[in-house]
Amino acid sequence: MLTQAELVDYSGHCSARRDGGSFFINSGASIRSILTAEDIVAIDFDGSLLDGTAKPPVEFPLHAEIYRARPDVRVVMHTHPRWSTLLTMVGVPFRPVFPQGSLLGDVPVLDSPMSVNTRDMGARVAGALGSGPAVLLKSHGAVVVAADMVECFALAIYLEENACRQYMAMQIGSPYVLSAAEQEACRGRLGTPSLYRKAWDHYRVKLGRQNPN
Amino acid sequence: MLTQAELVDYSGHCSARRDGGSFFINSGASIRSILTAEDIVAIDFDGSLLDGTAKPPVEFPLHAEIYRARPDVRVVMHTHPRWSTLLTMVGVPFRPVFPQGSLLGDVPVLDSPMSVNTRDMGARVAGALGSGPAVLLKSHGAVVVAADMVECFALAIYLEENACRQYMAMQIGSPYVLSAAEQEACRGRLGTPSLYRKAWDHYRVKLGRQNPN
Amino acid sequence: MLTQAELVDYSGHCSARRDGGSFFINSGASIRSILTAEDIVAIDFDGSLLDGTAKPPVEFPLHAEIYRARPDVRVVMHTHPRWSTLLTMVGVPFRPVFPQGSLLGDVPVLDSPMSVNTRDMGARVAGALGSGPAVLLKSHGAVVVAADMVECFALAIYLEENACRQYMAMQIGSPYVLSAAEQEACRGRLGTPSLYRKAWDHYRVKLGRQNPN
Amino acid sequence: MLTQAELVDYSGHCSARRDGGSFFINSGASIRSILTAEDIVAIDFDGSLLDGTAKPPVEFPLHAEIYRARPDVRVVMHTHPRWSTLLTMVGVPFRPVFPQGSLLGDVPVLDSPMSVNTRDMGARVAGALGSGPAVLLKSHGAVVVAADMVECFALAIYLEENACRQYMAMQIGSPYVLSAAEQEACRGRLGTPSLYRKAWDHYRVKLGRQNPN
Repeated sequence: MLTQAELVDYSGHCSARRDGGSFFINSGASIRSILTAEDIVAIDFDGSLLDGTAKPPVEFPLHAEIYRARPDVRVVMHTHPRWSTLLTMVGVPFRPVFPQGSLLGDVPVLDSPMSVNTRDMGARVAGALGSGPAVLLKSHGAVVVAADMVECFALAIYLEENACRQYMAMQIGSPYVLSAAEQEACRGRLGTPSLYRKAWDHYRVKLGRQNPN
Repeated sequence: MLTQAELVDYSGHCSARRDGGSFFINSGASIRSILTAEDIVAIDFDGSLLDGTAKPPVEFPLHAEIYRARPDVRVVMHTHPRWSTLLTMVGVPFRPVFPQGSLLGDVPVLDSPMSVNTRDMGARVAGALGSGPAVLLKSHGAVVVAADMVECFALAIYLEENACRQYMAMQIGSPYVLSAAEQEACRGRLGTPSLYRKAWDHYRVKLGRQNPN
Repeated sequence: MLTQAELVDYSGHCSARRDGGSFFINSGASIRSILTAEDIVAIDFDGSLLDGTAKPPVEFPLHAEIYRARPDVRVVMHTHPRWSTLLTMVGVPFRPVFPQGSLLGDVPVLDSPMSVNTRDMGARVAGALGSGPAVLLKSHGAVVVAADMVECFALAIYLEENACRQYMAMQIGSPYVLSAAEQEACRGRLGTPSLYRKAWDHYRVKLGRQNPN
Repeated sequence: MLTQAELVDYSGHCSARRDGGSFFINSGASIRSILTAEDIVAIDFDGSLLDGTAKPPVEFPLHAEIYRARPDVRVVMHTHPRWSTLLTMVGVPFRPVFPQGSLLGDVPVLDSPMSVNTRDMGARVAGALGSGPAVLLKSHGAVVVAADMVECFALAIYLEENACRQYMAMQIGSPYVLSAAEQEACRGRLGTPSLYRKAWDHYRVKLGRQNPN
């Protein structure tokens, strides 16, 4: 839970499955605050409060409908990353252009810029996500899912780094997309708990430097 | 008045209506200084000093002519934002490309890069503004108006954020513009005093961090 | 001399006319060092040391040949500004796109990327400069001249700011160039000692903040 | 060895030839750490540990195969520079666009984005490098070699600076490439130990400022 708090503070709202019918999620507290145990609540898939007193975010259905549709998912992150979102604004598909991007593959896009604050919108996000690790929301943001927090964080970082490189390269030409064989080889080599942990550790140190207190 | 000082210090010059024929405005003091009560003066629509001793900015007619034409306006901000101005330099119209941009709609542009230092120029700005919340000045800057300071500040932030996203997306394609229905829905959900206040609070914290003293 | 030292430290090498046949110039000391009186020397137009012990920069002929050709010039600055240089790399002419840019007008370009370390190259720079306030050196840098240090500094700042805006706007379209009448009006209003001083003061404060010691 | 540690800490992994059949290299330690003597090991061309206890990086064959093929090379740096890599992503050849870029010339590119973790891949890198000072790895990074550490560092800096200028200029047009005669003149003037040392000193001061501890 402490670990979760650290991550959530970094970017947007994040949730962790509690059991078959409920999950923990941070309240609508601002990104600047130091999250405490009080900011995290447990709710069921209809948003009813099971534990805690803070108000769940209005976009809780994004998380709920993914947990409902994907029993394998234990962590859901929803962020508003700059470069990934720019790709969706112009209809350019996300493609793996550096090795770590292979872990995401070709990421689908939900064709709506609106807030995911209803069960119907949540179900559309879950549908667009399918069985993959990520889905982009047009002109809005990104959703990444995984079996644990460290992997989910690493994938969210790789998603944005790949999108940044794709955007930058597009300004001067057409970026090389890794071949199916190259992607397959990269997934085998890079998709390991120890490398996800390395990315996590790298960013913890980096963020700790930028925000020493 | 204290609240006003905080905002003005952030960016450019800003005014607040005093009554039917006069308004408060900060003097030509530089952005770096900590504004004090002495830097704020009250003037009538012809620039005559009613209260205070500092010199009003040469572009006071921009404010005066808007107050004259728009009895509903109680706050006017004139800024020199980077991204919004770049759009005007190349003749690209401002279009809502993210939800908060819907609160501005399609923003008109005054077709002159010159300083607004005469009553005639002020009237041209007021004419281009019409009944809307904002007008851009070609190759020069932006003007945002509102019924109160917090709303005016939030709209100025959204204007520039939308322009930045529009500019960045244009470098790799043609950004999606929110449909009329999407804009209508966003205005209903986002145009509330509590969300304006949230934007205001968010930036106060952010600026406080960057300039701790 | 003290005033000169402050400026020189900011960017590249800079000189001030001493009399009809000689000038002061800073030695090849790096930008990071705090210039002291020892770093400034007086030389004649052939580079012979008249006062001081440090070594004049190899590009001294750039300064010498301008002083020889332009009796009205009392200060010469040679800088390596990012945006102005990018324009020269692709052959895009510098055009006034914001009011202060009018003080530079259409800036000529020397068609060579080589160091200005001979009398012949110096004469080519002076020839390209003609009777104007600035000349760009292809893929290399900029030269600005004026009757005094404060004006020269302000013009160097405006040159780069205009080039930056021109570059940024070119990424999404074709920037509006101020008309001859608008440029004329801007020159009359902005080309005053008090506004040059304001730009100087503004940057002194800004630089003082960034480098407090 | 101490000198080496300073450099390696700055960017990626770096090695120095020990003798005809072995070299020193830093372990896979993260960029944030202060390298100590314990982080540096000596290995032979097959990766067998000759001195030290830390684990050599998986990409050691990149270094080994270059030392095997190029007896003149005493230092190898492998970095992941942003701008150079962007050029390789879109298939734009590196061309000298500013004087210092002439020291690199037209840099070849290895046509694979994969990790250089086998002898075969190392040999492909050495083959692409040929007798030159640098080779780029598609969508991955750069390799620079030299007879000593200071020259190698300076060349790595010039490579990335040139790539940055080339990328930036390409956003608004087609950058001027120095002619063969201009490149020849620049190589004669700029390829000296004292100027390499100046670049090294300049960056040591700059980095020292950014990371005071």
